Formats: sequence, structure tokens, C-alpha cells
Amino acid sequence: MADDNRDRPLIAEGPVVILVEPQLGENIGMVARAMANFGLAELRLVNPRDGWPSDKARAAASRADHVIERTTVHATTEDAIADLGFVYATTARARDGFKPVRAPVEAARVLRTRFRAGQRTGILFGREKFGLSNEEVSLADEIVTFPVNPAFSSLNIAQAVLLMSYEWMKSGLASEAQTAFCGPQMEPAQKQTLHSFLDHLEDALAARGYFRPAEKRPKMVSNLRSVLTRPAFTDAEIKLLRGVISSLERYSPTEPRGAGAPAQRTRGAKSENDDG
Amino acid sequence: MADDNRDRPLIAEGPVVILVEPQLGENIGMVARAMANFGLAELRLVNPRDGWPSDKARAAASRADHVIERTTVHATTEDAIADLGFVYATTARARDGFKPVRAPVEAARVLRTRFRAGQRTGILFGREKFGLSNEEVSLADEIVTFPVNPAFSSLNIAQAVLLMSYEWMKSGLASEAQTAFCGPQMEPAQKQTLHSFLDHLEDALAARGYFRPAEKRPKMVSNLRSVLTRPAFTDAEIKLLRGVISSLERYSPTEPRGAGAPAQRTRGAKSENDDG
Repeated sequence: MADDNRDRPLIAEGPVVILVEPQLGENIGMVARAMANFGLAELRLVNPRDGWPSDKARAAASRADHVIERTTVHATTEDAIADLGFVYATTARARDGFKPVRAPVEAARVLRTRFRAGQRTGILFGREKFGLSNEEVSLADEIVTFPVNPAFSSLNIAQAVLLMSYEWMKSGLASEAQTAFCGPQMEPAQKQTLHSFLDHLEDALAARGYFRPAEKRPKMVSNLRSVLTRPAFTDAEIKLLRGVISSLERYSPTEPRGAGAPAQRTRGAKSENDDG
Repeated sequence: MADDNRDRPLIAEGPVVILVEPQLGENIGMVARAMANFGLAELRLVNPRDGWPSDKARAAASRADHVIERTTVHATTEDAIADLGFVYATTARARDGFKPVRAPVEAARVLRTRFRAGQRTGILFGREKFGLSNEEVSLADEIVTFPVNPAFSSLNIAQAVLLMSYEWMKSGLASEAQTAFCGPQMEPAQKQTLHSFLDHLEDALAARGYFRPAEKRPKMVSNLRSVLTRPAFTDAEIKLLRGVISSLERYSPTEPRGAGAPAQRTRGAKSENDDG
């Protein structure tokens, strides 16, 4: 979604993606785009129906030119995998034979391990209509299949390539929880900061007759403290809340402390709307 | 890829997917298809540019009619999430504010935990061109972002929905390694089965003068055993290999044991080509 990619590292490595007899140029382009999003770069086509190069593919690739320009065409699947050492076949249905069947997350880890050992690997994807033939599956070392809805399995090749590319990228992260950017450090403030804020709030409420009847005050304070302790507010959040309480205090009908309402309201809203 | 889905359970539950001001009907349809593949069913649209219902959306949904027919249209994002208790915003770029940022796999686990507790949840996806506004992000509880290629981040909304739907489905599996079907049990055969095969092979080779000079036989046998021990062959595989050796033995030039070569060759190839 973000487009400002200047000066950022372009990841372009990893397994070869092989499309066997793809029909639509748009699908090939969407495959290239999916690959580029997750750092894959080498695309091979076995007998693309509408030939190669393809204007439709390039348009659908959405600037993944580094993938489109390196794409090669092969007469047979054997030829397309000839220089590879380890190959996955993607398939939606069980096949007889001697192939281990892996989930995408496992397959990606296998590919990552082999990549780090310097091995050349690939992933075979079948035709739009009926996938890979049994003979093509038999050329692969292992099978990978996606955990789809049993009554609605209708992944197209660009979607299947997207999922494998995504798992490939994830397999290279230090942690599956790693993100490109982080939220603020959500470290809870020290309790003395929280309690100082709660004291402030309690005083402000007491001054306005919130604690009625008086004998219920301890229970009401206790509830207030529970509600405002559970969120584990950070220093920044408590600072914001202190500002809210201070602002509200100013406009007590009997004892107004502030002045110039419109300017104050604008400043009060700022902390929420200025998010970069 | 497989289409024979009769009598299989249709999964249709989980978080609501909310598209904010989607432009193209095709994208809405691809979103519905992505959701259906991974068991999500409830789609809401905030101000779709080209109106609703949409023939283009239905065509692109590829039979995900149960999603298309339930899709609702809302005037504002607030309205679209009014009945939900916990909401993610998807975004490709960092935002200021007080939101935790999660990777998809983590976010899906949070959603699954809340789903199991009976809570209603949702995921906000932004416009094709510029995603969600800061105000829209501020409506969400947490942020989810995808681990894309730093220099090529160009996920469209259908791809983003596909990835979150896939992680949602995965979060419900007993194990991330679970697959809809399994390969054969790849349990290695007992060593006595392997060694009996190796003895057979050694005898067949000895009868044909393979071990020359004779004093090298122990080293040659040792190498042969090493090569054929490493694959950890299963019972079924050793049975197949025994058949191969027996078949080759028959056609020794000096002592042919078999007859009717073409019929035998067809049978010999059968075990590879008959995969269902």
C-alpha cells in the first residue's frame, strides 16, 4: 500500500517460481507482483499459452519489472527445473506416491534452510484449470498444500504464489511476530505515576461533589482505581489523561479557571488527530 | 484448484472484513473469494465507489455467493464497526498514536482467542490508493501490518485480505503443520527389511561380476549400503526397489530368466504413473 520505497533494500533471492502452462497474462503479472512483495525474483514459465513477453503480464505486475524482465520460458517442466536441486509441487488434492506433504509454513522453512546452505530450489504451480499432472508432481521432491475451506477451495495461481511467497518471507524473519515498524513501547508507567494521576482525579472529583453519599467514597475510589489500573497505561497515556482532567477542571461552572474556549478545544484534540 | 467440494463442511464464521471505500468491483469480488477460501463469510463495505450490488464483484468472486449475498453497505466506518467489540486496522506504514502493532500471525491468534470467547471482531482494510486515514486507524484497537519487501510493497486489498484470511484459518488448526491430506506414513522400514534387500542386491551384482577386483568387494559393499541406507526407505519403497532388482535380474544377457519384455516394461512403469 505504501509506495515510497526509495533507498530501501530490494530483496530478490530465494526459490524459483515455476508456472506450468499458465493461460492468462494477467495471472502471470499478478504472480510477479506477489513474488516481488515478498522478496522472490526468479520466475520461469513452461509453455505459456499466450506466449512471452506479454503486455498484459507487465501491466498486472504493477512495477515488478525486475521479475518480469528476468522471466524465462521453457518447453518442458523437466527443462524448467533442470538446474535445481530440490523442488516442491503445489497441489490441492491428495496424490498417491512417495511424497511427503507439507503445510506452507513448513515448506517455507525447508526452502529457507536449503537456501542458507547454498542450494537452488523451486516451487511448481499448475494450470489455472486443473493444476499439475501426476507426472509433473512426480518430478518434485515434496508436496505443499494450503489449508483451505473444505467446501470452498478456489485459490488461483496468483493467490497460491502469494501465500508461498509470504511464507518464504516470514521464514527469513528473526520471529514470526516481527513487524516492519513498531508501535510505541507500551511499557506500563510506574505505579507512582499512575497513583499520582489517580490522586489528581480523585481531588478534582471530590471538589465537584462526585463522591455522594460520603460513606460510599472508599468504594467509589476503589472502583475508579480498578477501572483505570486495568489498561496498564503508559507514561504518555497518563500524561494525555492528566491533560484531559486539567482541561475539564478549568470549566467548572462555579469556579472557571480557564479562558478562550475555542483555542483550548483545538489544542485538546491535537494529540489524537496529528498521527503521522 | 480442486472443485469437487460436495458434502464437505462449509466454514463460514470469524471476524468481519470491512473494506473502506473500495473502488473496483473486481477487487471486492476477489476479496470475497479470498475470504471464502479460508472460511470467513461476513463482508461489509463503507461507501463503495461504484455502488452495490456489483456484477463485476459477483463475477470475480468465483462462486463465493454466500459471501456476496450477505455483504452489507455502510455510510461510515463507525457504522460498519458499531456492533463489534475488537477491531484491527491494516496499514503498511507506521502511525503515531497508542496502538500496538502486530504481525498477521499474531493478530490472527488474538482474533481466534476472542472468537472462541464469543466476541465479535473485525478487520479494517483501506482504499486501493492510500489505505486508511489516521482517523479510521484511530477507530481500531490494534494495528496489523504485513512483512513485505522493503523496496517493493505493493499489496492490493484482495491480497491483504487473502493473507489475513489465511492466517485466520491457520490460527484454528491444531498445528501450523496440519494439512488437509497426508502423504504416506514415511516410517523407515526395519533394518532387517533393508538388509535383506541389500543382500538380494549384493547377490545379484556378485552373480554379474560387479565386484571387481575381488579384494575391493568389502569397500564396494560398504559404499553401496551407505548410499541405500541414507534415504531411510519405507517398507513400500523397499518393496518397489526389490521389484526393480528382480526385474533387472531376469534380463541378464547370459542367463535370461524372464520372457515377454514389452508387457513387463509396462508393469515396471506402473507404480510411478498410476498416482491418483
